[in-house]
Amino acid sequence: MAKGQVNIGLIGQAFMGRAHSNAWSQVGRFFDVPMTPVQKCIAGRDEKTLAAFAARWGWENYTTSWKALASSPEIDLVDIGTPNNLHLQMAKFALQAGKDVACEKPLAGTLDEARQLAQAARKAKNAKTYVWYNYRRVPAVALAYQLVKAGKVGNVRHVRAVYLQDWADESVPLIWRFDKKVAGSGSHGDLCAHIIDMTRFVMGEEITEISGAITETFIKERTLPTVSGQGGIASGAKGSGKKGKVTVDDAVLFLARYEGGAVATFEATRMATGNQNRHGFEINGTKGSLRFNFEDMNWLDYYDATAPRETQGWARIMCTHNGSHPYAQAWWPDAHIIGYEHAFTNMAYDILLDQAGKKPTVPLPDFEDAYQTNRVLEAALLSAKHKTVVKLKDVK
Amino acid sequence: MAKGQVNIGLIGQAFMGRAHSNAWSQVGRFFDVPMTPVQKCIAGRDEKTLAAFAARWGWENYTTSWKALASSPEIDLVDIGTPNNLHLQMAKFALQAGKDVACEKPLAGTLDEARQLAQAARKAKNAKTYVWYNYRRVPAVALAYQLVKAGKVGNVRHVRAVYLQDWADESVPLIWRFDKKVAGSGSHGDLCAHIIDMTRFVMGEEITEISGAITETFIKERTLPTVSGQGGIASGAKGSGKKGKVTVDDAVLFLARYEGGAVATFEATRMATGNQNRHGFEINGTKGSLRFNFEDMNWLDYYDATAPRETQGWARIMCTHNGSHPYAQAWWPDAHIIGYEHAFTNMAYDILLDQAGKKPTVPLPDFEDAYQTNRVLEAALLSAKHKTVVKLKDVK
Amino acid sequence: MAKGQVNIGLIGQAFMGRAHSNAWSQVGRFFDVPMTPVQKCIAGRDEKTLAAFAARWGWENYTTSWKALASSPEIDLVDIGTPNNLHLQMAKFALQAGKDVACEKPLAGTLDEARQLAQAARKAKNAKTYVWYNYRRVPAVALAYQLVKAGKVGNVRHVRAVYLQDWADESVPLIWRFDKKVAGSGSHGDLCAHIIDMTRFVMGEEITEISGAITETFIKERTLPTVSGQGGIASGAKGSGKKGKVTVDDAVLFLARYEGGAVATFEATRMATGNQNRHGFEINGTKGSLRFNFEDMNWLDYYDATAPRETQGWARIMCTHNGSHPYAQAWWPDAHIIGYEHAFTNMAYDILLDQAGKKPTVPLPDFEDAYQTNRVLEAALLSAKHKTVVKLKDVK
Amino acid sequence: MAKGQVNIGLIGQAFMGRAHSNAWSQVGRFFDVPMTPVQKCIAGRDEKTLAAFAARWGWENYTTSWKALASSPEIDLVDIGTPNNLHLQMAKFALQAGKDVACEKPLAGTLDEARQLAQAARKAKNAKTYVWYNYRRVPAVALAYQLVKAGKVGNVRHVRAVYLQDWADESVPLIWRFDKKVAGSGSHGDLCAHIIDMTRFVMGEEITEISGAITETFIKERTLPTVSGQGGIASGAKGSGKKGKVTVDDAVLFLARYEGGAVATFEATRMATGNQNRHGFEINGTKGSLRFNFEDMNWLDYYDATAPRETQGWARIMCTHNGSHPYAQAWWPDAHIIGYEHAFTNMAYDILLDQAGKKPTVPLPDFEDAYQTNRVLEAALLSAKHKTVVKLKDVK
Repeated sequence: MAKGQVNIGLIGQAFMGRAHSNAWSQVGRFFDVPMTPVQKCIAGRDEKTLAAFAARWGWENYTTSWKALASSPEIDLVDIGTPNNLHLQMAKFALQAGKDVACEKPLAGTLDEARQLAQAARKAKNAKTYVWYNYRRVPAVALAYQLVKAGKVGNVRHVRAVYLQDWADESVPLIWRFDKKVAGSGSHGDLCAHIIDMTRFVMGEEITEISGAITETFIKERTLPTVSGQGGIASGAKGSGKKGKVTVDDAVLFLARYEGGAVATFEATRMATGNQNRHGFEINGTKGSLRFNFEDMNWLDYYDATAPRETQGWARIMCTHNGSHPYAQAWWPDAHIIGYEHAFTNMAYDILLDQAGKKPTVPLPDFEDAYQTNRVLEAALLSAKHKTVVKLKDVK
Repeated sequence: MAKGQVNIGLIGQAFMGRAHSNAWSQVGRFFDVPMTPVQKCIAGRDEKTLAAFAARWGWENYTTSWKALASSPEIDLVDIGTPNNLHLQMAKFALQAGKDVACEKPLAGTLDEARQLAQAARKAKNAKTYVWYNYRRVPAVALAYQLVKAGKVGNVRHVRAVYLQDWADESVPLIWRFDKKVAGSGSHGDLCAHIIDMTRFVMGEEITEISGAITETFIKERTLPTVSGQGGIASGAKGSGKKGKVTVDDAVLFLARYEGGAVATFEATRMATGNQNRHGFEINGTKGSLRFNFEDMNWLDYYDATAPRETQGWARIMCTHNGSHPYAQAWWPDAHIIGYEHAFTNMAYDILLDQAGKKPTVPLPDFEDAYQTNRVLEAALLSAKHKTVVKLKDVK
Repeated sequence: MAKGQVNIGLIGQAFMGRAHSNAWSQVGRFFDVPMTPVQKCIAGRDEKTLAAFAARWGWENYTTSWKALASSPEIDLVDIGTPNNLHLQMAKFALQAGKDVACEKPLAGTLDEARQLAQAARKAKNAKTYVWYNYRRVPAVALAYQLVKAGKVGNVRHVRAVYLQDWADESVPLIWRFDKKVAGSGSHGDLCAHIIDMTRFVMGEEITEISGAITETFIKERTLPTVSGQGGIASGAKGSGKKGKVTVDDAVLFLARYEGGAVATFEATRMATGNQNRHGFEINGTKGSLRFNFEDMNWLDYYDATAPRETQGWARIMCTHNGSHPYAQAWWPDAHIIGYEHAFTNMAYDILLDQAGKKPTVPLPDFEDAYQTNRVLEAALLSAKHKTVVKLKDVK
Repeated sequence: MAKGQVNIGLIGQAFMGRAHSNAWSQVGRFFDVPMTPVQKCIAGRDEKTLAAFAARWGWENYTTSWKALASSPEIDLVDIGTPNNLHLQMAKFALQAGKDVACEKPLAGTLDEARQLAQAARKAKNAKTYVWYNYRRVPAVALAYQLVKAGKVGNVRHVRAVYLQDWADESVPLIWRFDKKVAGSGSHGDLCAHIIDMTRFVMGEEITEISGAITETFIKERTLPTVSGQGGIASGAKGSGKKGKVTVDDAVLFLARYEGGAVATFEATRMATGNQNRHGFEINGTKGSLRFNFEDMNWLDYYDATAPRETQGWARIMCTHNGSHPYAQAWWPDAHIIGYEHAFTNMAYDILLDQAGKKPTVPLPDFEDAYQTNRVLEAALLSAKHKTVVKLKDVK
């Protein structure tokens, strides 16, 4: 019997358009997929480059009308890889058109929009929704989830979560990432969203309180961009002499409490000189601890406090063993490491499992789940603004 | 001409009594000291063990009367190595007796006492005061200070400071460190004090605001101790069946702002499983960054953002080179590493330089300086208590 | 004007077949290629799986006759991804058919065969040949080459090269990798070949002497395989009760001298418990040093001995900066790391540059170059066999 | 009853004189010693500095006649901290005078002298002998020994041992360490001796064969010294314009086999730029592996191949836990790390245990044991000289 297929329509041809395209084209090569992903159509605004992009990445068709794509009877799953301010209209439209939707993170640039999307998803009863918090599918992070679930860490008491980048020095012009209207926020939605989702996922616990927060914009003005970046973040962007105002945060720091009693520090910034992409967490529990840093994404550090004391230590686990580690069956022999893009491919695989009615390797975040992360983002902003503790139950 | 001598009287024969005794006895062996430290007398409460302690560590005399010691004409410098709640009366008495005073950190268990001590020091115009924030004299930390001062880091934007220990699990009984009356606080005065002092020292900047804080006691009750620990912290302490209430924090976390614009996370805890003594900081500036972790105390990590981009990276500096690194002239050949106790010996050397009217290797903290750290400690407690931002100018 | 194209015919559908297929299919997506690689045809022995493999990896056609493929007028470049004992006949045939040839490493399982291939390549004057020593194109390794070439290391005095794996314990049956007839040798041709090529490449120097060598087979007999492994090395292979003799080495160690005066240790093994794929080198020169370990393949360590002594240290370079590091222009934003397969894709890009008459990013190994590595392999075996020093000039 | 005492006479007031003096003066402070070490007398050649040295380091008397010291009825244990070429006459004399002897490593600069000393020790039936292979008493190394002994590593198959320093560049003049008459050899006796002893100790196995060796002198001539170094190795040494010939090796590399079947690489050098004191080993066994590097001397890495595969990894053990790790009872709280000198103090403690008829923490090397290390040193030299394999049974 023929295997079913999932017809995919992707909106967006920038950084995320590229990452998603790669995931859909690679997943069937490396994984034994339960359904075949078909790259039906891509929608983008820049007509000049769209045909070439579609050809390069294996899309059967392309269109400059995302609505045409999202309502086409040919499409089963609408994949949204656009800036945050477009998520609401696109995802809502697609849900109303009866499509399953996979949306880039964060679910939305504002809590209000995220709430609307969660509601829209609830309403569209048969629709499946996904949010591309792809780092859940870094094998080391998925393993961390499994170890916590298996009780290896015990009750978590401490969380340290950071997402540190350093690309945003004075030389970078005022690209869209510094514009609140487009991005919603700066490092907060871009980076904090990931570490909030990641700790919620790994721990299986919700944050109940933001106990204090700082938002900071170190560079208040930047030159206006004449050339926008290619290939990711701000690479290659150039500015003119004129300056414009930065309307988002460069850095966000906050303290939090989890439902299980853990206390946490969170920090996201684009100005942590020397840290190009340090996206990680440490959690300390009554029975053990875990550490992860994306810059060494194939490794997970685990401290087993129940081992004999004389050999207790931080074990550095290379998470590539076929048969022992999540997603390792798809890739290369042991310690022939994988990279950034593979987390997207792993997620594409889990989406296909879910589409086929099977259980994904580790839980997939849907709109409801991602809305919880938006609530935490909002609570942190409120805490910074009002200079006080904010309970999550008061942020909806 | 004969070299001058400094007659030292030490109060305290526990963990710190041992560390100070070692420092005074070793400093003249490894360093070319400008004045000779003479271990004149030690005062302690436990008469049974005092004579043996004095003999073991080379003290000429001993007494159970700290007042006798502190007022003896034989003594030039009173060195106080007792719990925090005794600092005020002892240091004040010694100052009034005309002595120079070296006091263990924190200067006091409460801000009120710290203020009184700062005042007493100001009053005793000719007295020199020192506080044993010994980690300033870990060579890597002293080098960090020198690099910041030389402009290698530029303007600091981010600080991450942690002091993580994990010894205080449920099995540890209610030793004095869990008793507010004796200790003043838990991890806060014990551990946070160090990271506050260390970042103030390395950056040469003051904290201006606590932007949010959490204090937490994970284990509310502990068994009463029957045997107290020997040789440091809680090692060997045993408890009975009866329980008593823990009156101090197990963990403290706070956010802060520095006068130069940097934002910071601070965390101190005794329950960060897998981190036995991770006492460190990261600072990120416009020109470079620094990282330090006491568990690897001979190393300093430095990121030079002004180097050619292709070879930019975190340089791991082994801080043991005689001729290049502070204090290295005293010890062993390159990379024949030193340990915890050496920071005390290095500090004893700098105290002797100061006594001889010479400039210490790096600045020594006096009572006034240590009082600033107590102000930050207090501000963090107020922030946690009142769930709001606390400006340092309002805490005196 | 239309961009030229290179029609590729691949022989082999196992581990390397998969890696090469991926490279050819991905190179045009990530790189701006000067010529378009067309995946014309794949040849394989296992007819049952060949059609599915071709479809999965995007090959236009497939055949069970490698000779048909290698002589087809449709094919420009014959890519050989088969076991070592087949390289000679296939590559020679393809060269005689007027094709360019890209052959898996080592060039051959024996020196005699390697010499024949080097001769065949010389004879086929217009043919371009390549050998898949893909690790040259790990960005960190390519950067190491560039730094040595720029004089940053000075004269090299010490080399430490290891390729350590640990998959070959008693549970692994007698797969082809333990059979001399197929593999030629064990860890020697499989692993040593890589570290010989890598150091020759990075240093730009030839080995002149093997100063001593050990070959060792720890496990002399293994059970005969009933199921062969899938997805790389020995993963999934199972054995029956009967045993057969292992005819290759498990480990090879040797000492060597380079033409510039450096002395070296080499070690390759499949039994270095805890080292799944530690493929690396250290070189120490008069001006600086370099360290690389494939398990952390995005990092290169560099020690600049000409820097001010106080900040000298091992700089850990994240080799992902677009504009500074080789191949980074193709991939993701800074520190969004890449993995094992990307070295193949980078090599495919350089082959295309070479095909288009342009200069590859770093030198490509041709048959002549790879023959030199076979000479070193042979010299090491002779040294082990005759228990004496072997000069390279005597091994041809 | 009064505790017994051991009266110590030390010969040598340079680098090792200082290290031994410190050990004898500190051991009674940190350890509960079974016998009291009394620093009776020190002998040295430089009368001008001897009195000050004795006073500084707590020696009761001093003399310029080592024979007077070694034959004095006051002395129980003669401690020899002089250059290698003096060991034979001094140790032999002391043994004949009925003393116990603790001799610096290597036992002698030549095999012939080492053999004579082993014979002298056998003859002096009641004498106890010790050789200061102090690194056995780095807690991490002692723990490695214990873990191997407990079977945690299984059968060792691979050994990698290095002792890499980088102080000996062109600027260093022709100090005694480059003079064969005084030093016997260069990096070989100085550094290789340590890694031979260390692996013999940790593994509890003897080397049976040197399978190849290289000795190399990179810098053939050096300027004659005008000022000799102080405080260790070559620090501060200065040279004149005239040059003299270096008569020792700068680097030694060899391959070896152990009685249990393991194969090994050894390397010692003073020119491994960037490695100031990398003294370490890796051993890989059938059940687990161990790694140690002196530059991080408080850590031992352990890979447990019997653990569940999913959490297998290199555990980084901080070897400072009182109650779990050797010698930790003497020092500071957990992870308040120790340094180079402490290995000597730990050894002094074990010597005192042995003097009191008790079992030392881990085995102490006597002259017989150290003679075995000299045999390996000689075998390596023979292998390099004769360019062939040398069996240990043929070297006596």
